[in-house]
Amino acid sequence: MKPIHAYGAESETSGVHPMTVERRDPRPDDVLIEIDYCGVCHSDLHFVNNDWGMTDYPVVPGHEIVGTVTAVGDDVTRFEVGQRVGVGCLVDSCRDCPSCDEGLEQYCLKGFVGTYNGEDLHDGRKTYGGYSERIVVSERFVLDIPDSLDPAAAAPLLCAGITTYSPLRHFGVKAGDRVAIVGMGGLGHMGIKFARAMGAEVTVFSRSEGKRSEIERLGAHHMVISTDEEQMEAVAGRFDYILNTVPVQHDLNPYVAALKPDGTMILVGLLEPIEPALEAGPIVFARRRLAGSLIGGLPETQEMLDFCAEHDIVSDIEMLDIKNINEAYKRMQDSDVRYRFVIDMNSLKGD
Amino acid sequence: MKPIHAYGAESETSGVHPMTVERRDPRPDDVLIEIDYCGVCHSDLHFVNNDWGMTDYPVVPGHEIVGTVTAVGDDVTRFEVGQRVGVGCLVDSCRDCPSCDEGLEQYCLKGFVGTYNGEDLHDGRKTYGGYSERIVVSERFVLDIPDSLDPAAAAPLLCAGITTYSPLRHFGVKAGDRVAIVGMGGLGHMGIKFARAMGAEVTVFSRSEGKRSEIERLGAHHMVISTDEEQMEAVAGRFDYILNTVPVQHDLNPYVAALKPDGTMILVGLLEPIEPALEAGPIVFARRRLAGSLIGGLPETQEMLDFCAEHDIVSDIEMLDIKNINEAYKRMQDSDVRYRFVIDMNSLKGD
Repeated sequence: MKPIHAYGAESETSGVHPMTVERRDPRPDDVLIEIDYCGVCHSDLHFVNNDWGMTDYPVVPGHEIVGTVTAVGDDVTRFEVGQRVGVGCLVDSCRDCPSCDEGLEQYCLKGFVGTYNGEDLHDGRKTYGGYSERIVVSERFVLDIPDSLDPAAAAPLLCAGITTYSPLRHFGVKAGDRVAIVGMGGLGHMGIKFARAMGAEVTVFSRSEGKRSEIERLGAHHMVISTDEEQMEAVAGRFDYILNTVPVQHDLNPYVAALKPDGTMILVGLLEPIEPALEAGPIVFARRRLAGSLIGGLPETQEMLDFCAEHDIVSDIEMLDIKNINEAYKRMQDSDVRYRFVIDMNSLKGD
Repeated sequence: MKPIHAYGAESETSGVHPMTVERRDPRPDDVLIEIDYCGVCHSDLHFVNNDWGMTDYPVVPGHEIVGTVTAVGDDVTRFEVGQRVGVGCLVDSCRDCPSCDEGLEQYCLKGFVGTYNGEDLHDGRKTYGGYSERIVVSERFVLDIPDSLDPAAAAPLLCAGITTYSPLRHFGVKAGDRVAIVGMGGLGHMGIKFARAMGAEVTVFSRSEGKRSEIERLGAHHMVISTDEEQMEAVAGRFDYILNTVPVQHDLNPYVAALKPDGTMILVGLLEPIEPALEAGPIVFARRRLAGSLIGGLPETQEMLDFCAEHDIVSDIEMLDIKNINEAYKRMQDSDVRYRFVIDMNSLKGD
């Protein structure tokens, strides 16, 4: 066991501060990674605050990790020392169920092992995330970061990126499709970029006019003010897909009405009961679909990174010194970030 | 205009009784059909009672019509006098939108013309359904009833049949898939037969043990008592598809939990708000889908009838004299019918 420097929370009220945690001794299939950058996801804050009632303290957040390989186990074949690599939301799974066999480790029937707040399947130890100096991860769960991508701006691809890429790909978005995005945060801004790169005609639903220039800069073709009934009526039955990234309860019915017959709305942010009640009629009467999607499996995450390299896509980020993480959380709660904080992990080493 | 004998309702409290309505003079693409049998659908009763607030009285219900061609217009090419034919829930559509172009007339963007309580697109007159001597329908909306099918038992295929066949086909049920059916009425019993004929492993969710022999007789492999928590837990994550035919509000969450990752629940009966609230988490965490489906288009309805002929499938019916229609409605409301009433329209002619 190796003690390492990290930032984490020890209770619901502690906030995040420096601590020491232990990483496991490497196994033959492990990759040792010196962490260079770590994105800051809303989930990090939810775990720090125990908003979901499932935090096992102490918790070291961080699952948008980009780093450099410093050592590899004897069985590792895909990675070598010095290579730039990434680690996303999961670091293990049963590797033996129908989902894992399909490379859909995020839907592992036994539950995947989270990059933090998870439990190692081999030794039962807790997993700690990317707000730390280094991490030890089994080769299967390590991604290659293409050289052409800015490594800091690539970090959010490991969660915000794959969360939006996966459903657009899986549900079949193709050139000419009309895709709408709901929610303009870390996820939504990536959704715009991916849908545009896939050749779709991209619309963003926004509650206010103020974001128009931002939305256009990110590549969207149209904006619809979701609080304007006339504008909403004008897009009734218009979209093949709606990617809904909003993580809090809101009325889904106006968006369902904006789907074509056979259109699909995909939820990637909402985890709560759907209230106000979803109307079944408009779903039945036009064979519409409501679907969910969770991050992505390892093969698809690599595909997404390669797609990003090909299309020159990264996240819009704001660099952060880890000492300022608690302030960053506050700004994130106020949606005051365009569009993802990324921690420069050199700031931890300098601590 | 030709006056014809029919049974219909004149107000919310009138019940159904004999009346005279007029059929249009045939157009060049029309088929004149002497009605032999007409199935009794729950919608008929809802329209008679104005449960959906959209009844334009007088209303003559009936959209599961089997009859015999007595004349055809000059432009009719697919039908000839003496042929056995069927008419389902729709008798016209705009014929010019993307949905109609795909043969999905039920999703016509301008709204399809219902077989009853609809408005003729050409002359603005009201449409009257199958509780009548004869009907005049444009060729495109007339189905061929294969000779091998019992014509009375084929009538419910035009609504209950296509409503269950269409989603199973469209969403891709194939041999070996695990399909569950919720609701054991006119729709549900057809769902069992179709899923079985498509090679699926068929399970029926039932609230009580009492229906086991019926469920097995209809071809299901398994039954799960939906009120038994242990049985429900035992089928968590089990099904590729759940066909939910229940037309009243009920908790969908236990059924969502019974879907595999990537599994789909299809609503074909529910038209109300989904309450209790649908949980988004289990949809997101396993990429599950909630979909709706409405009857079927004309090409798929013909495909369904041909599938029925090939697989020797008809509805289980109870024959009815039209004089007893109001009693039949009462029994239908009590689920006291196995599984569809069909009116012998000779009983109208004898009136």
